[in-house]
Amino acid sequence: MIIDCHGHYTTAPKALQAYRDAQIDELKSAAPAGGRSKGTVSITDDEIRESLENAQLKFQRERGTDVTIFSPRASAMAHHIGDEITSLHWSQHCNDLIARVCALYPKNFVGVCQLPQSPGAAPDGSIAELERCVTDLGFIGCNLNPDPSGGHWTAPPLTDRSWYRLYEKMVELDVPAMVHVSSSCNPNFHATGAHYINADTTAFMQFLTADLFKDFPTLRFVIPHGGGAVPYHWGRYRGLAQDLKRPLLGDLVRNNVFFDTCVYHQAGIDLLARVVPVDNILFGSEMVGAVRGIDPETGHYFDDTKRYVDALPLGDDDKRKIFEGNARRVYPRLAMALA
Amino acid sequence: MIIDCHGHYTTAPKALQAYRDAQIDELKSAAPAGGRSKGTVSITDDEIRESLENAQLKFQRERGTDVTIFSPRASAMAHHIGDEITSLHWSQHCNDLIARVCALYPKNFVGVCQLPQSPGAAPDGSIAELERCVTDLGFIGCNLNPDPSGGHWTAPPLTDRSWYRLYEKMVELDVPAMVHVSSSCNPNFHATGAHYINADTTAFMQFLTADLFKDFPTLRFVIPHGGGAVPYHWGRYRGLAQDLKRPLLGDLVRNNVFFDTCVYHQAGIDLLARVVPVDNILFGSEMVGAVRGIDPETGHYFDDTKRYVDALPLGDDDKRKIFEGNARRVYPRLAMALA
Repeated sequence: MIIDCHGHYTTAPKALQAYRDAQIDELKSAAPAGGRSKGTVSITDDEIRESLENAQLKFQRERGTDVTIFSPRASAMAHHIGDEITSLHWSQHCNDLIARVCALYPKNFVGVCQLPQSPGAAPDGSIAELERCVTDLGFIGCNLNPDPSGGHWTAPPLTDRSWYRLYEKMVELDVPAMVHVSSSCNPNFHATGAHYINADTTAFMQFLTADLFKDFPTLRFVIPHGGGAVPYHWGRYRGLAQDLKRPLLGDLVRNNVFFDTCVYHQAGIDLLARVVPVDNILFGSEMVGAVRGIDPETGHYFDDTKRYVDALPLGDDDKRKIFEGNARRVYPRLAMALA
Repeated sequence: MIIDCHGHYTTAPKALQAYRDAQIDELKSAAPAGGRSKGTVSITDDEIRESLENAQLKFQRERGTDVTIFSPRASAMAHHIGDEITSLHWSQHCNDLIARVCALYPKNFVGVCQLPQSPGAAPDGSIAELERCVTDLGFIGCNLNPDPSGGHWTAPPLTDRSWYRLYEKMVELDVPAMVHVSSSCNPNFHATGAHYINADTTAFMQFLTADLFKDFPTLRFVIPHGGGAVPYHWGRYRGLAQDLKRPLLGDLVRNNVFFDTCVYHQAGIDLLARVVPVDNILFGSEMVGAVRGIDPETGHYFDDTKRYVDALPLGDDDKRKIFEGNARRVYPRLAMALA
């Protein structure tokens, strides 16, 4: 089985964005938070099918992948817009839509939720929504935004104790988080070209410099986009860890930190597999995502990352880990969801 | 000749830091800017010699490199501290000290200046200091901080017109800038483990999305630390450029954007040379910098990047470009400085 650990519902029917636009319009009218209604998103099952058949499902068939761990569109989370209520309503609608996708295509998609984060907000809302999605909707993980401010980085580091109650819930439910920022409202940072990658790099260095995994030995994070800059600078991080008298990188990541394969060329994937332990690499493509085109140098989609992994000089056992085994270990609820 | 394009005076005599400490203390006393004196830094020539003989000079000899393009310690620039006057006094002292280093060891060091940037400040101070350093002190380039706020990223992107007057001066003087942030006062960003690398990635994406080099066809930037995450994600950037209908990466970088080799393991340097045009790679080590230790896997210093370049599967002509030719092209004043 080939499990793609990183997919977003980037092709959701237009009614979802129409809801969001109306929600943002309502914010501008300055209605009090309590007076804002959750509203409804009207999307038919046929619209959902149509949005997937010629996109994610087509690519699954063409590329030979089986199941996608699927979450709401990352760039649309935009936790910096509005407040906790805004994010709660928006997250619940987005997550409910993912649940409908998974119900319609239970063999093709397994859900991961967006959290109703908001700058400065306590984690209570995120804890409740995570529990709802895992317990009621059968989701197997969450996306955690280390920068709900959207490029201003005003939240404390992921290793700060203010995040700990959320981590306790993740551990209790035995679900991992993918560290994933959203769009950027800071003009310095292009979302998919800088902010995403920077956040991945930043999170890794936060993990390296703190004892988070001593406090939570079973807490697990997937760092997407191949780990940002980390594998390319693996020697730098090994050296920094040594200078700072921190654990060896292999020990740091072993049970807690994983990288996906959303790196859109062979040379990058080759590097990833050369330096990162094979047990810590999960196949992912983020297909129909940041890069939609065909690479003129290969004639294949940039984000057809299965081809790059297929081409790795690794044995079948190692490739099975990357394609399936590691995902099952990081997402133990996957087995239930696919049963 | 082997030219190391990236070295900072990280081993400066203690009197320099003592000056800085006193300067920061004076800020706390809230004296009006006009009332603050520039003061003096008392360092003897012997102290300078001593600070280099067992550090940068020793490593030049041991590693077989000839000359280092040398600038003040990057993490100590700290443009976020104080105001324009603070940065002006501090930059002038730091640059003057570099000039003394270059005068004492004219075959070993060529100067690059720190600019007196300050959050929100117009570029006039930086323009004047750049001109002083190039014209009076014989420097051949500058370090430009894309985030004078130290991790809050409040300045406009490097492609914004507010930077243009500085670029006009760079073009007039025919000197490049290395894009180099300083320390981070944002707890999310470890300086050398996240902030530096993020800034490199961020700057590249800014260049990719704007027409800066149409406006300044001869403007040149060196993106240090191997270009941040960029070579690892070269396919992503090729794909983004294509989706955004921007130029091919080869055309974007050709005459304007260069990467150094401050990547501290063989796999990283191999990737860099595999994807980035050889004409756009400059040998650099940032020795006695971010990573000071010996790699237990190789028995050699992590930052002995010459070894990695030596091991590249490239011909002698290409290696000569990386070690010397490209630096001479990017820093045309180098020839004068070494004459």
